Amino acid sequence: VETAPLRWEEGALLVLDQRRLPAREEWLRCTTVEQVAEAIRTMAVRGAPAIGLAAAYGMALGARDPERSAELLAATRPTAANLRWALNRARDALRAPVTTGGQDEEDPDPAEILLSHARRLHEQQLEGEHRLAALGAERLEPGDRVLTHCNTGALATGAYGTAGAVLSTAWERGRLGSVWVDETRPLLQGARLTAWELGRLGIPYRLVADASAGALMARGLVDRVLVGADRIAANGDVANKIGTYPLAVLADRHGIPFLVVAPVSTIDPAAPDGTSIPIEERDPGELLGSAAPGTADALNLAFDVTPAELVTAVVTEAGVLEPPYGETIARAVAGRA
Amino acid sequence: VETAPLRWEEGALLVLDQRRLPAREEWLRCTTVEQVAEAIRTMAVRGAPAIGLAAAYGMALGARDPERSAELLAATRPTAANLRWALNRARDALRAPVTTGGQDEEDPDPAEILLSHARRLHEQQLEGEHRLAALGAERLEPGDRVLTHCNTGALATGAYGTAGAVLSTAWERGRLGSVWVDETRPLLQGARLTAWELGRLGIPYRLVADASAGALMARGLVDRVLVGADRIAANGDVANKIGTYPLAVLADRHGIPFLVVAPVSTIDPAAPDGTSIPIEERDPGELLGSAAPGTADALNLAFDVTPAELVTAVVTEAGVLEPPYGETIARAVAGRA
Repeated sequence: VETAPLRWEEGALLVLDQRRLPAREEWLRCTTVEQVAEAIRTMAVRGAPAIGLAAAYGMALGARDPERSAELLAATRPTAANLRWALNRARDALRAPVTTGGQDEEDPDPAEILLSHARRLHEQQLEGEHRLAALGAERLEPGDRVLTHCNTGALATGAYGTAGAVLSTAWERGRLGSVWVDETRPLLQGARLTAWELGRLGIPYRLVADASAGALMARGLVDRVLVGADRIAANGDVANKIGTYPLAVLADRHGIPFLVVAPVSTIDPAAPDGTSIPIEERDPGELLGSAAPGTADALNLAFDVTPAELVTAVVTEAGVLEPPYGETIARAVAGRA
Repeated sequence: VETAPLRWEEGALLVLDQRRLPAREEWLRCTTVEQVAEAIRTMAVRGAPAIGLAAAYGMALGARDPERSAELLAATRPTAANLRWALNRARDALRAPVTTGGQDEEDPDPAEILLSHARRLHEQQLEGEHRLAALGAERLEPGDRVLTHCNTGALATGAYGTAGAVLSTAWERGRLGSVWVDETRPLLQGARLTAWELGRLGIPYRLVADASAGALMARGLVDRVLVGADRIAANGDVANKIGTYPLAVLADRHGIPFLVVAPVSTIDPAAPDGTSIPIEERDPGELLGSAAPGTADALNLAFDVTPAELVTAVVTEAGVLEPPYGETIARAVAGRA
């Protein structure tokens, strides 16, 4: 994938530094787990599925002390379910017997096990995202004007994308008119990253302020809302980039379908509902910038929770989940195990 | 008023350049109506009541050709009702017989008539805003955490403020805990101006991204929403800074009172409802800034319309208006004539 924000090359994880986009395409070369953790923490790589994948590669770099590496990576960002899921999978891979076509090795190299695990995860993720993109595209209609928030394309997953992949596939299949892109304050993932991706894909879009959604919907300019997710609770409550919940409330008022697109690894069966999802507070400085008075303080909540009742459907690689989410999510999770 | 953004001095209108705040306090000296129109158009002075007042002073500077001056000023910004109201009042003043304590002058100087009209308007506005501030403060409770949007203090009116004046008076009277300040994209009137004003007044506040309101309300951190208005239709629909309508929808969902604070001059009896209010689209460049790709386009709607059904009350200098707005607004407008 041309825009894939991470790849393995000669013993290092190369990470496209998303903080510099779209002005510059700079790659970070991570050769230690500490460097990977720092890239996740500082959001050089971001997007729940992408940080899960980066963490899987990070485990390969930190194979000498897997427990410490997993702790280091888990501590970077609290909300994304995929991160913890990927770390658990990596631990499982270490414990599993290695089958190498009949040849049993005495001491399999943990670094090799973890690297081949990460590569497999990367491939599975790419396949899964193509499946969910196809399923999601069927939910769109030709000419649809879709409102989206934050960034959910290849940059957000390291592969094809979530909501962004649905937009790509729908565009290829003539099932998309244009996209409204929320700029997504404070870090402007929409203005910087989604605009960059859609421009490269040739998909027509216009940027809007995050607070514009109400006016756009009231004017009949939005046919569907598509967003990704950072964690989905067992009851279908969805944690996603701050500003997602207002979009869902407005979509509900205007009778507009509100679709969440995410891999099954985003579901956290251990979280009964949104109240048990930890919500990251980031540095107020990200919000204050240079505009506010020097004495100003800010509350910089990175995510909010959209109650399941406002979610029309959750598009996953295992199928499109609909209410009652308690049941459909449980089935999807059982299928993944 | 210490922070008054405009005052008359030695034949010129001095305008505090709000584009430079809070970094620098620079004053523009306008000696022609063209300069006043430019200051309004470029938002050196902004806020519906303040641009009405600036236009009144601008008429005094353009007294040689009042019709042309009124047209020039009216064309600067389409949404604010106060601008057109102030221009109509200036025209009325020119037509009215001049009473100067019994001494009738043969040829009263239009510039003098228009200047004394503007000064009177300024005084009336200050008095009116103190009245509405007192009425609004009674609607708050000690400890209230109020969410506000854009800037509605002295900077927005040239006098004491609208929603911001309510916050000032409520704070003085012990009826306010703290304020959540929406940064208000794209021009950051909240982060730059409201933060600056609240800081000077010693009122505790924290900045938040515009998209945070849903998360704050869901956590029970907002007791009331207070906003200003740029135009209020006869049925109570309210045009205000983009992002106001989503706040009203969220407040409704969470059972939080949504109060609009505005002078009666903001009411446009000629607009039956929100659909007849012209909504300004501003330069996409204000939104794109330097973050988006160079090829990006944006839709920069400056205002949205909040339906009357979501407005708990409209606080004016003539009293607190409540539903049914068709009746209460008609009475308030009749009282102003």
